[in-house]
Amino acid sequence: MRLWRLERGEIAERLEGPGILACGDRAEALASVMDGRTADRVVLCGMAGAREGLREAPYVPCPVSVSQWRARMTEALGCPGLSVWIAAGLSCRDASGRPDVMRGEETQVFGAMSLDPGLANGTHVVLLPGTHSKWVWLDDGLIVRFRTCMTGELFALLGQSSLLAAGARGANEDQGFAAGLARASEGAAPSAALFEARAAQLVDGRTVDWARGFVSGLLIGAEIAAINPQEPVLAIGDPALVARYGAALARCGVQMRAMDGEACAIAGLRLLDDD
Amino acid sequence: MRLWRLERGEIAERLEGPGILACGDRAEALASVMDGRTADRVVLCGMAGAREGLREAPYVPCPVSVSQWRARMTEALGCPGLSVWIAAGLSCRDASGRPDVMRGEETQVFGAMSLDPGLANGTHVVLLPGTHSKWVWLDDGLIVRFRTCMTGELFALLGQSSLLAAGARGANEDQGFAAGLARASEGAAPSAALFEARAAQLVDGRTVDWARGFVSGLLIGAEIAAINPQEPVLAIGDPALVARYGAALARCGVQMRAMDGEACAIAGLRLLDDD
Repeated sequence: MRLWRLERGEIAERLEGPGILACGDRAEALASVMDGRTADRVVLCGMAGAREGLREAPYVPCPVSVSQWRARMTEALGCPGLSVWIAAGLSCRDASGRPDVMRGEETQVFGAMSLDPGLANGTHVVLLPGTHSKWVWLDDGLIVRFRTCMTGELFALLGQSSLLAAGARGANEDQGFAAGLARASEGAAPSAALFEARAAQLVDGRTVDWARGFVSGLLIGAEIAAINPQEPVLAIGDPALVARYGAALARCGVQMRAMDGEACAIAGLRLLDDD
Repeated sequence: MRLWRLERGEIAERLEGPGILACGDRAEALASVMDGRTADRVVLCGMAGAREGLREAPYVPCPVSVSQWRARMTEALGCPGLSVWIAAGLSCRDASGRPDVMRGEETQVFGAMSLDPGLANGTHVVLLPGTHSKWVWLDDGLIVRFRTCMTGELFALLGQSSLLAAGARGANEDQGFAAGLARASEGAAPSAALFEARAAQLVDGRTVDWARGFVSGLLIGAEIAAINPQEPVLAIGDPALVARYGAALARCGVQMRAMDGEACAIAGLRLLDDD
């Protein structure tokens, strides 16, 4: 849980607590992070609106405009002394009817549109890398569709796997990352190429850090190959992770620019605090 | 650790203990499973020969004949009262020089060849599904190359992930498996399709069991798509898992027959106990 206390549009304070799904009583957890502070309004996005969150907020089906999204925000009652509102999530279906969902990233994307009005016209591809990377397609200010890749979570799970279980240390993670990207760009499927990270340690003297880089490059490269973006990408998120995606996209000849994830989140939440 | 006590070629007893890498003193762990029994010889394959095992046994580079493999078995000293020998593992490199390794499955493959002399002539594809699935290509009795897919380990890791974290139960895992196979056969990359297992629970009312089947079908389907076997496949391993691969291969028009994993392991170990 991350809260920004805004005064006259400026960040006056940053508050942090455990993820809302990790808390027992969600309302108490919010009150505990607020710690007696008052606010005209508390606006939340992300897992606070999950079925198991503070209060379930709907998924609005794509295509979605900012006003359609705002109209579906949900008041969370049961937070004494606080007026709490939760952003709606989004859902979409691909051409075969297969579903996808997001909670939280839509707030950053609408926030990015409010910060950069150029995004409100024409088509744009937005990438929000992370545990569940989201690729979002914009058309004339609408979020028309999106796709989730669980690259970050796969990478975290593989960190506990036999691939990276033990091995010599060494500062060549970047070399491994480049090797993994190269492997993905040849069309290698992760399930058939991941084990190379282990075999290279056993018979080619690679370090476990090289192997970690290889796994990261292979997964990010496979994600980009699956999405196959054809136009410049706007990336929103953690700068170190965004830089990795930038390197991977550059390899495919795709340009990337970045916007600050916190700034986009705050701008998106302010859209819900306007009326 | 699994030991078969053979008397005049028949299984007289099955002994089981913890995996050798899970034990403190490896020699003591073996003695504890033997529990005072005597033997002319103890022959081991698999992780007993890993660097952290009982004693490191070499990786013999492909192509490898059964006699070349036998010649590289290694005596593990330091097991009082026991004559202990460990099978060599195999290594190979693909056309680009990328390495792969195996320990244990080679024993089953050479065992299969001794049980079915038809395997000693012509070309054959052998699949040993499991934590680390091995695809092994035979040519006139030689193991010429192989490929590891970590499908089983990925499936186990994903069992702890957000995809299958919670959800309604329901007996439709087989439907999910078929849906996952279908998805893979369209060329869907797991990183971009795995999250459908979660989204389908959230917005289409699928059960967590359907989702588990979907993940299994997607991963097995992606493995087969990556390997793209063009001839009938011989599968050696756990019958339930072999049946899943059989269903997936049938979808691709590839025939499969099966041999019993235990029988192949014992036949392979006996090849090391002959002299």
